[in-house]
Amino acid sequence: MSEVWKENFSQCSKNSRPSPIREILAVVKQPGMISFAGGMPAPEVFPVDKFWECLQDIKKEGRELMQYGLTEGDQRLREFLLNWTAPRLGKSAAMNQILLTTGSQQALDLFAWSMLDAGDYVVAEDPTYLAAINVFRNHRAEFLGVPMDAEGMEVDKLPGIIEKARSEGKKLKFIYTIVNFQNPGGATLSVERRKKLVEIAAKYRIPIFEDDPYGYVRYDGEHLPSIYSFDKEELVLYAGSFSKILSPGLRIGWVTGNETIVRQMTIFKQTTDLCSSALTQGATYEYCRRGFLESHLPNIVSNYKAKRDAMELNFEKHLAPRGVKWVKPGGGFFFWLDLGGIDSMELAKKGIEKKVAFIPGIPFCIDPATGRNKARLNYTFSSPEIIEEGVVRLAEAIDEMRIPAK
Amino acid sequence: MSEVWKENFSQCSKNSRPSPIREILAVVKQPGMISFAGGMPAPEVFPVDKFWECLQDIKKEGRELMQYGLTEGDQRLREFLLNWTAPRLGKSAAMNQILLTTGSQQALDLFAWSMLDAGDYVVAEDPTYLAAINVFRNHRAEFLGVPMDAEGMEVDKLPGIIEKARSEGKKLKFIYTIVNFQNPGGATLSVERRKKLVEIAAKYRIPIFEDDPYGYVRYDGEHLPSIYSFDKEELVLYAGSFSKILSPGLRIGWVTGNETIVRQMTIFKQTTDLCSSALTQGATYEYCRRGFLESHLPNIVSNYKAKRDAMELNFEKHLAPRGVKWVKPGGGFFFWLDLGGIDSMELAKKGIEKKVAFIPGIPFCIDPATGRNKARLNYTFSSPEIIEEGVVRLAEAIDEMRIPAK
Repeated sequence: MSEVWKENFSQCSKNSRPSPIREILAVVKQPGMISFAGGMPAPEVFPVDKFWECLQDIKKEGRELMQYGLTEGDQRLREFLLNWTAPRLGKSAAMNQILLTTGSQQALDLFAWSMLDAGDYVVAEDPTYLAAINVFRNHRAEFLGVPMDAEGMEVDKLPGIIEKARSEGKKLKFIYTIVNFQNPGGATLSVERRKKLVEIAAKYRIPIFEDDPYGYVRYDGEHLPSIYSFDKEELVLYAGSFSKILSPGLRIGWVTGNETIVRQMTIFKQTTDLCSSALTQGATYEYCRRGFLESHLPNIVSNYKAKRDAMELNFEKHLAPRGVKWVKPGGGFFFWLDLGGIDSMELAKKGIEKKVAFIPGIPFCIDPATGRNKARLNYTFSSPEIIEEGVVRLAEAIDEMRIPAK
Repeated sequence: MSEVWKENFSQCSKNSRPSPIREILAVVKQPGMISFAGGMPAPEVFPVDKFWECLQDIKKEGRELMQYGLTEGDQRLREFLLNWTAPRLGKSAAMNQILLTTGSQQALDLFAWSMLDAGDYVVAEDPTYLAAINVFRNHRAEFLGVPMDAEGMEVDKLPGIIEKARSEGKKLKFIYTIVNFQNPGGATLSVERRKKLVEIAAKYRIPIFEDDPYGYVRYDGEHLPSIYSFDKEELVLYAGSFSKILSPGLRIGWVTGNETIVRQMTIFKQTTDLCSSALTQGATYEYCRRGFLESHLPNIVSNYKAKRDAMELNFEKHLAPRGVKWVKPGGGFFFWLDLGGIDSMELAKKGIEKKVAFIPGIPFCIDPATGRNKARLNYTFSSPEIIEEGVVRLAEAIDEMRIPAK
């Protein structure tokens, strides 16, 4: 029955194949499985009471909220976000410089529609966000990876990478970067490097997509200024999301930046989903207007900080003795482990036998060699007790891998 | 500031230009303007009380509904839809044969991702849904139009069109059709032609996308079986939407069909927006579970039927004497007018002077010549009184166009 469909598939469909992590995510729901695999918020930190209070009280706007919304998104929520992010963005923006999207994943797709032709290159940290790699690949882009250390992208290497690529005739379209608590790497770009990154973008005339879903989920130290704040030429597009600071079930992300790119993304939004939900945007505006975003954020941060600390403590107890290394993330959702000599795909399989799941490094990596001995572990979703049990199981899995099978 | 962005735009961005209808939609909000331009439900038919009752009562599921949902969509809502649409679809389908989308507009984009390469051809009624033309064009498709009469697509002409195209080496990927109360044409495909369309698809091995947002909004006569129901080879993908039968602000559409294409679209949904809102899907499921979808639908139908009748009455009074013709739509949202010798773009401009807006025919047409003297008018959004006043203004606009300017 399916032959006619397959015969008529696009090249992009034919190139897409079952991913190894889909196999892992498929077993995550098995009973007794401890999952460090996804990137989900903890259900217990969702502000259900406060959010439902807002939902109830906006019934009077029901006729507007059940209608098609503006493609650009709820005007009140856009205005709130411009004000709320102003300290982070370091400068004010106008209403035609912000677009609400169906989660920040859609912002990536709309940006790719706007910027990428087949064979164009995207410069990104290696490793980087898996679903950014996938969406840019669907738009037929290629990648140039920039290595990271504990201070984030090694921006000193960028000019060499750019000049080499250009001398080879490669078309670099933009730099994709996650500056705060990078996914999966965990590192945060230092202020010095932020400034340098913007200088390089200006010098080489390359736009930047600054993806910042985790920026407000910081456990240690002070917030750093965005790269957007150092940019005098409107080369940086800043992307934020409510998924990690309120709820991913609402599907609300946004981008702020130069009005030309924002307008172009809006045009593509009209063809991809017309508009996002007026209802979830209206409820979210009400939640923000009442000050709940500000007042609830510390609950989220303290919940995740405790879990990050619990995971690191157990790493020190159970994994450090087994040669595993990591950079402590100052915020965000993930640890990125260097497993030393261990193959992470093999460990993932062994882990599933022991009922603990994580995502091996390769799918995050532009150069697969970078990821072979790496693993991404999420700590926000599980309780500290479950985290301990999961890390113990992982240590056992490592030990069993080292005993040659008879 | 915007030069660097423009220099780096994709070809698709460079090809996109301000559309003439965007100009019209921009003036629709002017005070005193009567708009027949959009395709919006009437705010007064939204079941605000019933829907908010559901929203309130699902608070107990708050932690699940604020979380990321499945990419495939809420399992309970998918199961409900399989059962609810079964009489229309004429056969049962399994859970891996249905995908929920962010409005049915997203279904078109995901389908295009799955099927279209640059230069592929889509066969469609001419005229057809504007935003379907736009999304398929973004995926670099070309079109072959099939003319329509009062019984819908003239399917007898299809074999000739297909054979000619294939002999010219054109790659036809699928047939896109709106069988009930076509947008913008208004016609409904007869049962005889539905059967024939499926036979042709099977003979030539071409999949069909059956877009049915209006099927349940029928004013006259009995519901007709879907094309999907006549299809024995899983060549037809059926697409439905809650936008016209409940609320477009929820952004929920769906597709049902062969599991291979449904799975492929699910893979592309992961990169375009990960998942749709678990909250709006959960509330919609609750609304359906309580029987409100069934019980409220007659209110929508009777409201729109009265408006359709009011518009036609005023057409007879004011436009028929001026040579304007139309096919009475048995359901749906639109009249499609044949303006005789009048240029519809010119009339649209004159209409805006007289404070009445509609969309001229050309943007809906594969062959622009088809649309030059056509106009699409929506009747669901305005009250019968406003409809009368709008049609009177339109008649005045026609008269003024016929008086040569001094």
